[in-house]
Parts: sequence; C-alpha cells; structure tokens
Amino acid sequence: MSRAVIGVDLGGTNLRTALLTTEGEILERHKEATVVSDGWKKIVLRISDNISRLRESAVKRGLDIRAVGVGAPGVIQISSGIVVKSPNFPDWNRLPLKDELEHELRLPVFIENDANAAALGEQWRGAGIGISSMIFITLGTGVGGGIVLNKKIWHGADGMAGEIGHITLIPDGRACSCGNTGCLEMYASARGIVQSYREKAGGMVSTEILKTTTSEKIYQSADAGDATARAVMKDMGHMLGIVLAGLINTLNPEMIVLGGRVKDAWQLFIDGTREEIMRRAFLVPAQRTQIVPSILGDDAGMIGAAAAALQNLGD
Amino acid sequence: MSRAVIGVDLGGTNLRTALLTTEGEILERHKEATVVSDGWKKIVLRISDNISRLRESAVKRGLDIRAVGVGAPGVIQISSGIVVKSPNFPDWNRLPLKDELEHELRLPVFIENDANAAALGEQWRGAGIGISSMIFITLGTGVGGGIVLNKKIWHGADGMAGEIGHITLIPDGRACSCGNTGCLEMYASARGIVQSYREKAGGMVSTEILKTTTSEKIYQSADAGDATARAVMKDMGHMLGIVLAGLINTLNPEMIVLGGRVKDAWQLFIDGTREEIMRRAFLVPAQRTQIVPSILGDDAGMIGAAAAALQNLGD
Repeated sequence: MSRAVIGVDLGGTNLRTALLTTEGEILERHKEATVVSDGWKKIVLRISDNISRLRESAVKRGLDIRAVGVGAPGVIQISSGIVVKSPNFPDWNRLPLKDELEHELRLPVFIENDANAAALGEQWRGAGIGISSMIFITLGTGVGGGIVLNKKIWHGADGMAGEIGHITLIPDGRACSCGNTGCLEMYASARGIVQSYREKAGGMVSTEILKTTTSEKIYQSADAGDATARAVMKDMGHMLGIVLAGLINTLNPEMIVLGGRVKDAWQLFIDGTREEIMRRAFLVPAQRTQIVPSILGDDAGMIGAAAAALQNLGD
Repeated sequence: MSRAVIGVDLGGTNLRTALLTTEGEILERHKEATVVSDGWKKIVLRISDNISRLRESAVKRGLDIRAVGVGAPGVIQISSGIVVKSPNFPDWNRLPLKDELEHELRLPVFIENDANAAALGEQWRGAGIGISSMIFITLGTGVGGGIVLNKKIWHGADGMAGEIGHITLIPDGRACSCGNTGCLEMYASARGIVQSYREKAGGMVSTEILKTTTSEKIYQSADAGDATARAVMKDMGHMLGIVLAGLINTLNPEMIVLGGRVKDAWQLFIDGTREEIMRRAFLVPAQRTQIVPSILGDDAGMIGAAAAALQNLGD
C-alpha cells in the first residue's frame, strides 16, 4: 500500500484538513468553520471526525495513513503535543491535543505551532522548495513567523522561537499588546498599517473615513494614487526591511518568505524593504537572501503540518 | 595511542596555539605576537611551526593528533577553509588557509571564524557546558557574535551568521563603519561607550579628559561613583538588552554568554540589560534564558577551534 499523511490547520476561523501524498501533494481537502464557543471537547471531536473521514477515503484509494500533523495557534510543547495556551481558544489550558487525538484515532499525531507549520509548508512545497534555511513571516492582523534551518523548524528551548513580530523596531515606539513598545507588529501588520494611516491622514480626511478604514482600503487608495496611503505603505516596507536586515545579519538565511494578507500589497512596500536590507545588512548575505511572497496561501498550514508529522516519524 | 587535537586562535595581536585532549582539556600552550606586516606566507609558516612543535610534544606524551582547528578573523568559507577576507590581514584575499596548512602538516585542518570558535569554546568547556542552544556575544572594540544551535555553530548560507553587532538598534542612530546607522556595536562596544561618554560629559569635563578617555577609565569612574559614567554604563546595558530581547523572541535560546573586555564592567550594565529582556521578550523565554559572563577568556578561541575540528571529523 502507498503511504499518505493527513494535515490539519486549526485556525480561530476555519478548520482545514487535507489528505496528502508523502510528497506533499493534496489529494482531498475539507474546510469548515471553527466554532470556538463549542469548547475544546467538541473541537477535538470535529478534528478527529474530519481526519477519520479522510482516512476512510484514503483506504478506498489504497493508501495507508502514516501520521497526522496538526498546526494549532498558540504556545505548543512540541515533544508532548500539549497546547500550553492559545489566544484563539480561551478554554485551552495545557490541552493534551496529541494524546486526545491519538486516543481517538490510533494514529501517530504531531502538533506544531500554526506559523511554524505554514513556514514548513512553504519550504516543502511552496516558495522555498529546495531551500534549506528560510525565515517565514506572516503579515496579517498580527505578525507571526517560523524559522526553518536545515529544512527543519527551529523551535528553541521552549518551542517559542520565531516570534519575529515582537522584535523591537522602535525602542520607544507604539505600545504592543505583548507588553513591549515598538514591536515590528505595530508597524508591519494590517493593524499597524491602519494606525499609521490614522496618524498620517489625521486632520486631512473625515473622521468617518479614519474610523472605518482597513488595510485593504489603504492599499486600494495607494493603488489609486493617494499620496498619504502610498507613503504609509512605503514606510511600512522600510520598517519591515530594518528588522529583516537584522535577521539577515543574525541568521544569514537563503530566503525570507512573506505571507499573510498584507503580502497582497507587495508592490506598495517591497522596494523600501529591499532598500533597507541593502543598506543595513552585510553585502554578501543581503544580496544572497531571496525575499519572496508565499505561494501556498491558506494551504501552507495543512501542508506544513503534514511535513512536520512525516519529519517526526523520521520518514 | 590516546587521541588529541590542536587548537589555534589567530588574532590581529596574538597567535595562540594549544594541545588539547579530545575532551577539551589544555595540556600545553604557546603564545606569540602576530606580526601582520610579515605577510600571509610568513604567518602561515608561523602557525604551521607552532602546530608542529606541539605535535612533537604530543608524540612524546604518547598522543595521536587527530586534527587541527584554526579560528581566524574575517569571512571564512567553511567548507573549503578559505579566508575570503580579513579586516586584520589586508593582504589575505581568498587565502586557502586550510589547504596551505594541510599541505605543510599532513593533518586534517578545519578553519572557523574567530567569534564562532570562541562561541563553541564557551559552549564546550566554558559557561555553556551542557547547553545546546546559545548565543555568544563579544563586547570588545567592536561587537561580534556566534550562534550555537544543537551544540553546533549556525553558519548560515555564506558563513556570515552571528553578526549580532550589526543588528539595527536605533534606525536613525550613529553611523557605523559597516555602512548602516544605529548598529548595536555603536552603543555596546568599548568604542560605543567612549562615544556615549563624550556625548554625555561634553561641556562638563575638560576636553583633554574627553579626548583621552577609554572604556576602562569610564568603568573606573563609574565604580568611583561618577554619575555621568554610571549613566553611560546603565544606558549601554539597556541598549544591549533591547537587542537581546529581540534575539530571545527570535531564537528562544537556553543561554546568552557575554564576553569581551566590556564584560568586566558586568555589575555596571547587567541590570539594565535584564530589565529590557523582561520588558520586551515573551515571559517564558525571557525567564528561561540565562545571561552569563564568558569564563574562558582568551582560551575560548583555541578551545572552540579544537571543538570545531573534532565536530568536523565526526568524533
């Protein structure tokens, strides 16, 4: 029997599940809304049900499921598969997700942090195919990250490495919800872009526009030639570049992959990012590091969770 | 016959060579001045002569030399052992140091960057014994670094990882010789401390004192209760802490080891450093990361070069 693997991406909004070949090709997929208010027991059962359904389908295809990988938001204790805590699931407190699912499924289950899973997905089957060292950064509502070294996630001592969004960029800058001031996230996330626009456009446009603007509306204005919106996106690119230059001088990676919805505004910010890298990082690493958009989109997490499970099996 | 290894630390000032057991214990050592003006051929010959002498001594002790490790300043192409360029040796231009020494010695030679060698030395036999992930930072005239992950140096794609001193700390800050502005090195090195003192004490002390001050004199003044000197050292500690917090959020290491002569002013700066880490890094990694002084001093490079050579042999 040929081997296959199941990848799960558990988000605060959607629960995505896929049946994949051991080469990372998606054979079948399922998506449903995550009902956070259901509580952890029901959510675990939903995950388990989705996996079981794809497993039945695998059997019909003559495929043997080797393992299951689950990408989940929050702090994960990798070795035990415990979700220590998760901002999206307030009632998850040291939830033994691996044990719960293995008990239901009688299959080896591996739990990974969602940003790490997406990083590994992009490295395995996305923008980073063939790349050994890569930093993945999601520019979404917040800024998350995952670090791939020697084709594996670098977890750090507590499984908390890769928190790129909370590197200090402006020591006395904007207050961040993490308790720090001046985190990259406060300038390069969708929320940061909105705040920058409000600061820059204040007094120039109506309070109503300021109040209801979104990062997407700001990109549209910038595309349409609005000078303030263009300046906001340009500044955001420079801010991102300052931190990327520091990461390049620190880790000298082959590639940095940018994902998340802010990535869609690529042409509006990337020149400033590249400028800062060339100015601030050493020449050879600065020239070497490819800065590219992610290509797997919402599939990255499932694919990477599957990759993590296979790596953990030693396959 | 028991096995042994030779470690060499080639600096712009001194050339240090040691005979070590494969457990990293120094059995015999030699130190002489590096005469940079001699040119590369003579320097390579001096290195080779020193190694040969220790090798003869090893034979008398009934020891079999397995390999030689050399820590050298500059950009090293690790796989080939070529010194691409070295700020300390202007005539070294893609010098095949490994090949030159292997030709002379008929022994496996491994070349490592000097800061990386010191990092590995501290991990193997110094402050980081038993530690798997560690960042080593030398606070000297400049600020250098080495990153140890899974007990091995993380070199990066071009062998240029670990340039911690050139992470941007203050985006529009002091101009650095690397071309960037606001590098950590401009605030946390001996030179940075002198510059901070000149800025803070200007107009308050004589021009003569400002001109002739050194980082050591500033520590002494601070120890003696001088408020300006104390503030300079406290600020330096905070500056260092801001970057360390970013590194902790990025890599979540077990330990950060601080070496170099600025380390001698430990009590004058470390509180500010720890304060910034607790304020700016996530709680679990911030509490977990041990921040400690290096303990091997000038021996770190030789010991680490030997460790790198043994790792490269697969011993």
